Amino acid sequence: LDPLVKTMLSGDRRALARLMTYVDNRHENLMDIMKDVYVRTGRALRVGVTGPPGAGKSTLVDKLITSFRKQGKTVGVVAVDPSSPFTGGAILGDRIRMVEHAQDDGVFIRSLGSRGSHGGLSRATRDIVTLMDAFGFDVVLIETVGVGQTELDVMNVAHITSVVLVPESGDTIQTMKAGLMEIADLFIVNKADREGADRIFMELQVMVEMFSEGRDVPVLKTQAVKNIGIDEVVQAIQNLSAATRQTAVKEGLLKEEVLDLVSGEICAQVAQQSVDGGSLAALFQDLNTNHRNPYVTAGEILGRLSWK
Amino acid sequence: LDPLVKTMLSGDRRALARLMTYVDNRHENLMDIMKDVYVRTGRALRVGVTGPPGAGKSTLVDKLITSFRKQGKTVGVVAVDPSSPFTGGAILGDRIRMVEHAQDDGVFIRSLGSRGSHGGLSRATRDIVTLMDAFGFDVVLIETVGVGQTELDVMNVAHITSVVLVPESGDTIQTMKAGLMEIADLFIVNKADREGADRIFMELQVMVEMFSEGRDVPVLKTQAVKNIGIDEVVQAIQNLSAATRQTAVKEGLLKEEVLDLVSGEICAQVAQQSVDGGSLAALFQDLNTNHRNPYVTAGEILGRLSWK
Repeated sequence: LDPLVKTMLSGDRRALARLMTYVDNRHENLMDIMKDVYVRTGRALRVGVTGPPGAGKSTLVDKLITSFRKQGKTVGVVAVDPSSPFTGGAILGDRIRMVEHAQDDGVFIRSLGSRGSHGGLSRATRDIVTLMDAFGFDVVLIETVGVGQTELDVMNVAHITSVVLVPESGDTIQTMKAGLMEIADLFIVNKADREGADRIFMELQVMVEMFSEGRDVPVLKTQAVKNIGIDEVVQAIQNLSAATRQTAVKEGLLKEEVLDLVSGEICAQVAQQSVDGGSLAALFQDLNTNHRNPYVTAGEILGRLSWK
Repeated sequence: LDPLVKTMLSGDRRALARLMTYVDNRHENLMDIMKDVYVRTGRALRVGVTGPPGAGKSTLVDKLITSFRKQGKTVGVVAVDPSSPFTGGAILGDRIRMVEHAQDDGVFIRSLGSRGSHGGLSRATRDIVTLMDAFGFDVVLIETVGVGQTELDVMNVAHITSVVLVPESGDTIQTMKAGLMEIADLFIVNKADREGADRIFMELQVMVEMFSEGRDVPVLKTQAVKNIGIDEVVQAIQNLSAATRQTAVKEGLLKEEVLDLVSGEICAQVAQQSVDGGSLAALFQDLNTNHRNPYVTAGEILGRLSWK
């Protein structure tokens, strides 16, 4: 076992943070390290929190942390913002939250920003969640900024996915369109004191009844800023966890993870070899100055890769 | 030249449609075919239309088609919905539009739904746009459903990206957060007769002034359902096109395209070999029934790939 992994598994937060920078920098031994770390996972309850921008997810997550902490549970948080160019370090919202929980050794918050395309972000999210799980956090909260495909991909790593909406979220028909119904284990109507809250609450209940296919998908109201309804959300998550966790790690998802890892690694190798002096540098030079035809360059690169 | 490509280039719509099913099914000769098709591209003006769900993008695109047609321009439309499981065929909104433009040989509409992760959707979008461009459409409109990372990736294929917002789109600060400012060449405030339209219009103008870094980013108002402001949008697009097209195909984007193509192809090869009887079937069997550790399987697959 890598000494740093050993130190991390013994409960050293600084070792955990250092391993997270390995994920950021795609350390050359990352695959081997994660292979060992992965074996230690399986304890943490992984809870996704997604929903449209402006739904108050950050505030809600903040209150969920406090509620879980009241129960004595330790909490890791991964805040994923596919649109943010910031990598690794804390983005604004997390700085604020970090101040609040800075003195609490039972909380660890980590932000992840854009990693380009090619599954980089969902891969990094998986790695960070794996590290937090192995470290021993009882709960890992995965918060995303939006409801796009990348955010939905990221949610694959969660056992339970909660979707946060607000009265302004618009017709629930749009919610369905965004594919949220299929991934939601729990709906939360936040800012529930606002006009229209009852309407969206009822619409969601009807929708859940029609489309949940026998699953129990609770719909709850919260006012996160006033700490109203938070303990009920935690309770609902814990009730769900027993029922849904077993089915969470599906065969299809494992295969997706493998494909993520393989394609991410191949892209990294190609990118690495495309810089000046690399074995693919001439191909990319030719692409940019001569034919400008990506299909030609891709074909040539694929021609250099062979299966043993 | 492939006979089907020849027929397509001669203006045969059925050949165009058949080549699009090659994209859907990832035909084994697709890379070679696209290599040849790509050479014939470069004429079409590629216009992206993105924005949050409910902004009225479909209606707007419908009216833009009509406005371009009044000028005698032919129009191809790619409607991209990352959350829709429908592939290839028309989704509901497009069926309606297709009826309207069904008798018009100068219009071709194609929907693209979810293609799993690993850049499948942005790759398919590129291929379809490439086909439409080579076929000879004067304008290719690329419409997306949301504003997530996948949708932003898809916009890489456009020369000009228009972002559609409505008064209900919420604080413009959220717009910035979603990374739209960096990709927008043009903002459209649709449903401009609604309350709050003036406020978001002014906010966008301030934002553009502060963050556009010298680019001319017009902000326009429309009421698409009443056909108000549409011709002005078309005019603005045409004014922009001269200025922005040259810079559109940047070196970085070409490299991204290559990486998309390479990783997509490798994933397809892995997926193909993972089925019963394939050379990787035993590895995936072992993953699902024994270790359940994706890092181990990925490591083994990568060990079988070598660079010539």
